[in-house]
Amino acid sequence: MEYRHLGRTGLKVSAISLGSWITYGGHVNNEHAFDIFKKAYDAGINFFDTAENYSAGKAEIVLGEAIKKFGWKQNDLVISTKVYFGLNNSADPSNPINNVGLSRKHIIEGLNLSLKRLDLPYVDIVYAHRPDRDTPIEEIVRGFNYLINSGKAFYWGTSEWSAVEIADAWRVADKLNLIGPAVEQPQYNLLVREKVENEFRWLYEKYGLGLTVFSPLKQGILTGKYNGQSQPPADSRLATAKDKYSVAYSKTFGNETWQRELELVEKLKPVAQELGVSLAQLALAWVLKNENVSSVIIGASSPAQVDENVAALEVAKKLNGDHLKKIDEVLGNGFENPPRRF
Amino acid sequence: MEYRHLGRTGLKVSAISLGSWITYGGHVNNEHAFDIFKKAYDAGINFFDTAENYSAGKAEIVLGEAIKKFGWKQNDLVISTKVYFGLNNSADPSNPINNVGLSRKHIIEGLNLSLKRLDLPYVDIVYAHRPDRDTPIEEIVRGFNYLINSGKAFYWGTSEWSAVEIADAWRVADKLNLIGPAVEQPQYNLLVREKVENEFRWLYEKYGLGLTVFSPLKQGILTGKYNGQSQPPADSRLATAKDKYSVAYSKTFGNETWQRELELVEKLKPVAQELGVSLAQLALAWVLKNENVSSVIIGASSPAQVDENVAALEVAKKLNGDHLKKIDEVLGNGFENPPRRF
Amino acid sequence: MEYRHLGRTGLKVSAISLGSWITYGGHVNNEHAFDIFKKAYDAGINFFDTAENYSAGKAEIVLGEAIKKFGWKQNDLVISTKVYFGLNNSADPSNPINNVGLSRKHIIEGLNLSLKRLDLPYVDIVYAHRPDRDTPIEEIVRGFNYLINSGKAFYWGTSEWSAVEIADAWRVADKLNLIGPAVEQPQYNLLVREKVENEFRWLYEKYGLGLTVFSPLKQGILTGKYNGQSQPPADSRLATAKDKYSVAYSKTFGNETWQRELELVEKLKPVAQELGVSLAQLALAWVLKNENVSSVIIGASSPAQVDENVAALEVAKKLNGDHLKKIDEVLGNGFENPPRRF
Amino acid sequence: MEYRHLGRTGLKVSAISLGSWITYGGHVNNEHAFDIFKKAYDAGINFFDTAENYSAGKAEIVLGEAIKKFGWKQNDLVISTKVYFGLNNSADPSNPINNVGLSRKHIIEGLNLSLKRLDLPYVDIVYAHRPDRDTPIEEIVRGFNYLINSGKAFYWGTSEWSAVEIADAWRVADKLNLIGPAVEQPQYNLLVREKVENEFRWLYEKYGLGLTVFSPLKQGILTGKYNGQSQPPADSRLATAKDKYSVAYSKTFGNETWQRELELVEKLKPVAQELGVSLAQLALAWVLKNENVSSVIIGASSPAQVDENVAALEVAKKLNGDHLKKIDEVLGNGFENPPRRF
Repeated sequence: MEYRHLGRTGLKVSAISLGSWITYGGHVNNEHAFDIFKKAYDAGINFFDTAENYSAGKAEIVLGEAIKKFGWKQNDLVISTKVYFGLNNSADPSNPINNVGLSRKHIIEGLNLSLKRLDLPYVDIVYAHRPDRDTPIEEIVRGFNYLINSGKAFYWGTSEWSAVEIADAWRVADKLNLIGPAVEQPQYNLLVREKVENEFRWLYEKYGLGLTVFSPLKQGILTGKYNGQSQPPADSRLATAKDKYSVAYSKTFGNETWQRELELVEKLKPVAQELGVSLAQLALAWVLKNENVSSVIIGASSPAQVDENVAALEVAKKLNGDHLKKIDEVLGNGFENPPRRF
Repeated sequence: MEYRHLGRTGLKVSAISLGSWITYGGHVNNEHAFDIFKKAYDAGINFFDTAENYSAGKAEIVLGEAIKKFGWKQNDLVISTKVYFGLNNSADPSNPINNVGLSRKHIIEGLNLSLKRLDLPYVDIVYAHRPDRDTPIEEIVRGFNYLINSGKAFYWGTSEWSAVEIADAWRVADKLNLIGPAVEQPQYNLLVREKVENEFRWLYEKYGLGLTVFSPLKQGILTGKYNGQSQPPADSRLATAKDKYSVAYSKTFGNETWQRELELVEKLKPVAQELGVSLAQLALAWVLKNENVSSVIIGASSPAQVDENVAALEVAKKLNGDHLKKIDEVLGNGFENPPRRF
Repeated sequence: MEYRHLGRTGLKVSAISLGSWITYGGHVNNEHAFDIFKKAYDAGINFFDTAENYSAGKAEIVLGEAIKKFGWKQNDLVISTKVYFGLNNSADPSNPINNVGLSRKHIIEGLNLSLKRLDLPYVDIVYAHRPDRDTPIEEIVRGFNYLINSGKAFYWGTSEWSAVEIADAWRVADKLNLIGPAVEQPQYNLLVREKVENEFRWLYEKYGLGLTVFSPLKQGILTGKYNGQSQPPADSRLATAKDKYSVAYSKTFGNETWQRELELVEKLKPVAQELGVSLAQLALAWVLKNENVSSVIIGASSPAQVDENVAALEVAKKLNGDHLKKIDEVLGNGFENPPRRF
Repeated sequence: MEYRHLGRTGLKVSAISLGSWITYGGHVNNEHAFDIFKKAYDAGINFFDTAENYSAGKAEIVLGEAIKKFGWKQNDLVISTKVYFGLNNSADPSNPINNVGLSRKHIIEGLNLSLKRLDLPYVDIVYAHRPDRDTPIEEIVRGFNYLINSGKAFYWGTSEWSAVEIADAWRVADKLNLIGPAVEQPQYNLLVREKVENEFRWLYEKYGLGLTVFSPLKQGILTGKYNGQSQPPADSRLATAKDKYSVAYSKTFGNETWQRELELVEKLKPVAQELGVSLAQLALAWVLKNENVSSVIIGASSPAQVDENVAALEVAKKLNGDHLKKIDEVLGNGFENPPRRF
């Protein structure tokens, strides 16, 4: 396993991390989930990501159970969770009033409830799962600093914030001598590049911002498994999972965007073949090549997928400038940023 | 004339202001320029915008001469200039080493030379004409604060900066208890809306950012004068002006973008006709309806144009929500921003 | 016993303190260790120094047991420990990923685990056992301030940091209105003087830096017991201890540096004889004469050694300027620092 | 000419700059000095360094006269001077009481007198020519900020300060939201490397410290002109100049250090021969290869020397990693700094 610093912090995270989302506590049963966690830990993954709303809190419960079951120690782990959505999801849509957003109340209550589900005294990283434009940024920055100062988290970050919102959080943190967000969690993959490569481009150097990125395989599209299919394969999540995200996503199957993306995937095949690797491994390796990425979050639904994904670290070592250039030519979606000193 | 606050400052500027760019000291001769200045002043325009590099310093000289010639008092005027480019333009391309950019040296030396050309002890607003990514933002913010503290400017602003760069300037200003940028000068018109309506959308409330916008007629395209023309009209700037900007722009005549824009202009004609106004007036009035706009900079090349442009203030009063909705439908380039409190 | 302020703090520490390192929990058995602790306490030593990695955590356990066994109260003691190395040593080399260094995570987790081993609610002083050049100084300063603010330590210090790193920690502490490092723990003895007498010379006055110094006898060399020996004496640590530090050190026996040092020790004998004291006492007394030294850490392996070492306090009273001058002439390794006011 | 940023500032300085020291206003007559200035300016050198005490103020007078004589504009120049020593030198040894050091009084009075001699309203950079350990660092930092805030200098720096003193100046600057020193001026050449390569190694990244380095040829020794000489060549400064520095230096001719250095110079000859360049050019090119060096200050005593020195920029382009490695092997005085993130 390769370990990277989380942005400009002293914390080291495995370059590949295991995310929960709709998987654990969700469409994968718990025994199966424990096997996956075990496989990940044994492969050197020390970084496990979850959120209060993933499977309406069940993802945190399963993760906490795994830690206890295997006797893992918290000083050997990096655990992150996220507050914003409460328990809101299809199974439990009630999310009344103050159980959502980034009021001081929900920031603190939300993490307290997460820690209870995880059965842990603290997490390493707590994220603001979305921006909250109805709460002043000062209240938000103070809220996350409260969590850090009360020992319930070591670092805080953001997820799906805009560059200017991150800069504004740093403004308030600097003005008040508080701790700013160390990390942002956006989507990043071969098909979705604008935020990471363009919008955020000034932030890495200025604020030492690290990235933990999700959907490196764009919900499976970059594995190529949907190419040439007239409907979702019978064993795919799109065909089987019943959560609202999967159902909504399954409805995009075959639409215009979908077709365009499959065409791009088709064009990546020769590059994968030249390297002698699967499309999934190429896609993960490509994300790992971006030095602003601290960790790539995978969402394995079997121990075998963990193995295959971790193998992408070796693929990344083989990916050279020529391959990257070829990929940019084929996809035509890269960003050329002029050099700068600051 | 209508006067608006410059963003969240106490300064009041005429909603229509007179810009120099390549006009005065450039393709319009000085006597003619004086007539235009006089007409503008008499129409209630108190806000005159220029920059160190406009016509390589000559724009500032002409403006300074007009002020003296007509005996205008500085307390009745709002004068803005900009530093960054030195004297660099087609007539005087030499701009060696430190005569460009936003080093403390050029910020200070640049404005000192501008004031000499204007023959004024101070300006009201000094802009950073572009971002300088080779100079630390702290040096830049300190440089403009020096100008303010030494009495050479009352406010400072930016021109063509990104939202995140403006936010970062505010971070440093707030951290150091210095004055942040009060105003940004971007392009804004019916055809170019993304920056003002989307990228900057959080900045108005957060930092009290005002806007002084240029090219409200998109260099004449929105007057409709190029529609149905196989070449630039003989008396148009595109046909006559020899400065590098005009020459470069004339080469885009008739290209794909040009054609697409003329088609949009065509679609605006019915709205103008319904209101019984010229396309130019509709275009100016539409910009004036945006409450984040502190002032619209016009670049009249005759006294008559001043009159026609100022009349847009009356047109703006007639423009209602239905018109604006119609325009958005016709152009299809508007931004729907979700409501927020902060 | 003599008590000195720890640098510019209000805390008073015995001028002679008892360190653990590889001794307790290590090559000295526990019952023996308890006798030594008892003797030290009865001699007026109130200051006991340890670290998370000393004998892989066992040093802290023994110290905690002694406190409990003898019913000592924490308000009568000054306890210091150190974080950085985790449990890493020859007995337990595994120290994976985040269990080392000065990330916020390890600073907090490390001290929490130390307190558990000591079975104490807090220590008086927590040290950063080394600089961590992979973690921003702001994260480090904030981490130690967190420990102080959460009541787990009263003061923080550094060990084997460079002068410029200590100054930089003070820069961040002053900028953020946080608490800077009160004390540094370097090696200091008649043979190793550069750091304390030269590199650190500006820090004492500027930051009120105190020193707790280790190896006052340079691991026994300054006792003279190795002079005239062709191999380590049978009862010496070099001959008996099996920990990695002792083994590595035993390999330097007789090498060039070793010989050079023995020659210097030889030259000190006349001074010791003149004072009628042992070489060890002269060496300790000489360290005690340095007014920047808050406490000299001894590593006694018998109660008798405690007595002998504590007697050095009386020797220090006899050591006058002439003796010190003589020693400087004999050793030729002193530093003459020009007088200054600040 | 190559231009580099002065450390992390926005100011651009020629990589080779012309220093005054004992040359102009000293052992080179003024007409000759004007020829050298002219040659330097025409070669693209924009950066001229002087100090209040160089030739007891005469160096500044000559430089000011040259600027006037050739009609150079200050926005095309970078002028630096230094305060600390007053006018103290062999010709005018009286320097009573407050005309030396870094009291607020001398910082301000000193630069005012320098500006009078230079007949300029401001300089670009003002240096503290030495540390002043009898004046609190806060008074010093505030003094230099006063100069910047009153428009008499754009940046301030230090000369021959220690790393910890520079760090301490930054501490006070950060605490008080003032401007810290942007640049240090030490000696740096093939024979004197410790400060630049070891002591200062953490400062470049932390504070954005730039370096303007003097004596790149170590007062001529690195030209090889003293090799094989039993006495200083008749036309050398050592033989002719009467100022106190030259006289003192001439007395070291042939001593032990001198001989050791000549031997090292001898060993560099094969490297110079392989590149087909003079030893002087090799020495200058080697300094230019250090990316922490913003500018190398030369002290040409003829226009031809300017040409020869400026040609070193081309030599630097040819110097590759193999050459640098070879030089390190031959000299054995390099520093290997472990990699770090901060």
